[in-house]
Amino acid sequence: MRRDITGFSNPLVKRIRSLRDKKHRKRERLFLAEGLRILTEAREEGVIPDILFHATDAQLHPLAIELIDAVDAAGGEVVATTADILSKISGKDNPQTLVGVYPDRTTPLADLDRSAADLWIVAQSLRDPGNLGTILRTGDAVGAGGLILVDECVDPFSVEAVRASMGALFTQKIVQCRWGEFIGWLRSGPGQLIGTSLKTDKDYQQPAYAAPAFLLVGNEAQGLPADYEEACDLLVKIPMLGKADSLNAAVATAVMAYEIRNQFRRGDPAGGQG
Amino acid sequence: MRRDITGFSNPLVKRIRSLRDKKHRKRERLFLAEGLRILTEAREEGVIPDILFHATDAQLHPLAIELIDAVDAAGGEVVATTADILSKISGKDNPQTLVGVYPDRTTPLADLDRSAADLWIVAQSLRDPGNLGTILRTGDAVGAGGLILVDECVDPFSVEAVRASMGALFTQKIVQCRWGEFIGWLRSGPGQLIGTSLKTDKDYQQPAYAAPAFLLVGNEAQGLPADYEEACDLLVKIPMLGKADSLNAAVATAVMAYEIRNQFRRGDPAGGQG
Repeated sequence: MRRDITGFSNPLVKRIRSLRDKKHRKRERLFLAEGLRILTEAREEGVIPDILFHATDAQLHPLAIELIDAVDAAGGEVVATTADILSKISGKDNPQTLVGVYPDRTTPLADLDRSAADLWIVAQSLRDPGNLGTILRTGDAVGAGGLILVDECVDPFSVEAVRASMGALFTQKIVQCRWGEFIGWLRSGPGQLIGTSLKTDKDYQQPAYAAPAFLLVGNEAQGLPADYEEACDLLVKIPMLGKADSLNAAVATAVMAYEIRNQFRRGDPAGGQG
Repeated sequence: MRRDITGFSNPLVKRIRSLRDKKHRKRERLFLAEGLRILTEAREEGVIPDILFHATDAQLHPLAIELIDAVDAAGGEVVATTADILSKISGKDNPQTLVGVYPDRTTPLADLDRSAADLWIVAQSLRDPGNLGTILRTGDAVGAGGLILVDECVDPFSVEAVRASMGALFTQKIVQCRWGEFIGWLRSGPGQLIGTSLKTDKDYQQPAYAAPAFLLVGNEAQGLPADYEEACDLLVKIPMLGKADSLNAAVATAVMAYEIRNQFRRGDPAGGQG
């Protein structure tokens, strides 16, 4: 279905705008993604928005026209609207000319097939949406299967996290659970739980990582709780040669994830440093 | 000198608040850093603020008291003020209880001693202050000497960049210059210029990196200009196993920088993959 909306007080505009709040996202089980690049990435994964807003006054890119046709063909709603209304929906002065409304993409932990990938990222109490999105983007790049969010993490479907993920939100499985559930599930099958810690001297290049590897990343300020560290099969440390004692959480995740990937891709049974 | 300020219209408060704007930072050659952790990091590097604001109504940490004494002893100005005024200065609802005003820390390119470190990071047209600060933080961790900012980069002394650097702004040399100046300086001495590119198939673990290594990172959206890539001694690619074609700029920098550091620390003459 296609229609035009030009009024700010249109109920659909109000409803979609409310999806910028976590409370409304949770209630509606919907979220927003913006921009041709991310929406095209989603479509390449076979994910079509329920509702697609596009600017009437913009020259539409051929990929945008394909996307509009795909939404229409799938029975979704295509809304042509003004730049002002897109600005209102996205909360940005210079809005993207495409905004998609997608159903929540959380996978229940019980439905996660750990054999689908040799590497998974697990984040605990992550607070920053930019870090969360960047970790998803890194997960895609490094061939991880998905991101398991443990305890109270920032919402992966916030506009900031979706933007930072650059579309990886649509390629990575996303699970949200408590620590107890996660560890119970993990120990019900194969899996090496790998934590980074300041309390160990074991260099991150020393151990041999084993698939499926679960890389556990802690909160930006506190790191991992002591009992979570104790539950790990391996605790390792990225060398810090300067004055600071830690890396940004998304950076530490990437450095660890590429070390694990590098070991796996060269089939190294004894670890990078033997 | 110590004094109390309680009035919002105090000229010093207005002047310091204006340092949130790049224009005023440039004119005054001063910038702001906030919070006990970052200010203590600076003091450990021997850098004391010209002016230190602290909250009168906060319980002062022993390190804050040491900092206040150090500023006083160095002839700086210590200002006790209200949380509201600190909020006005920092632009945050929950301000840190310490704000320091520091002189600009830019090093002229001609004064940079390349032999002081075996690894330097060079960023071109970087746009995001969080990325810039995170790259400084990574530079500290990986034992880089500093960050050379080429062309129009975001201001490294913005509040967001300083915050993301977590104090690394005080441990890393910071240079700002044009590409022509940089490449002229680089070729006047030893140095391997290493760029990441989508246009090469050379895996980033394949080459042998040589000190002093200059790791060149491009703009978040565009990457490096073609002629900058041509000027590199090595172009390499971080493997991308998913759907996306790039990593976040700070993440890519960290993955590259740790590969170079790992080669150097194991004294590997032939590169990670031989």
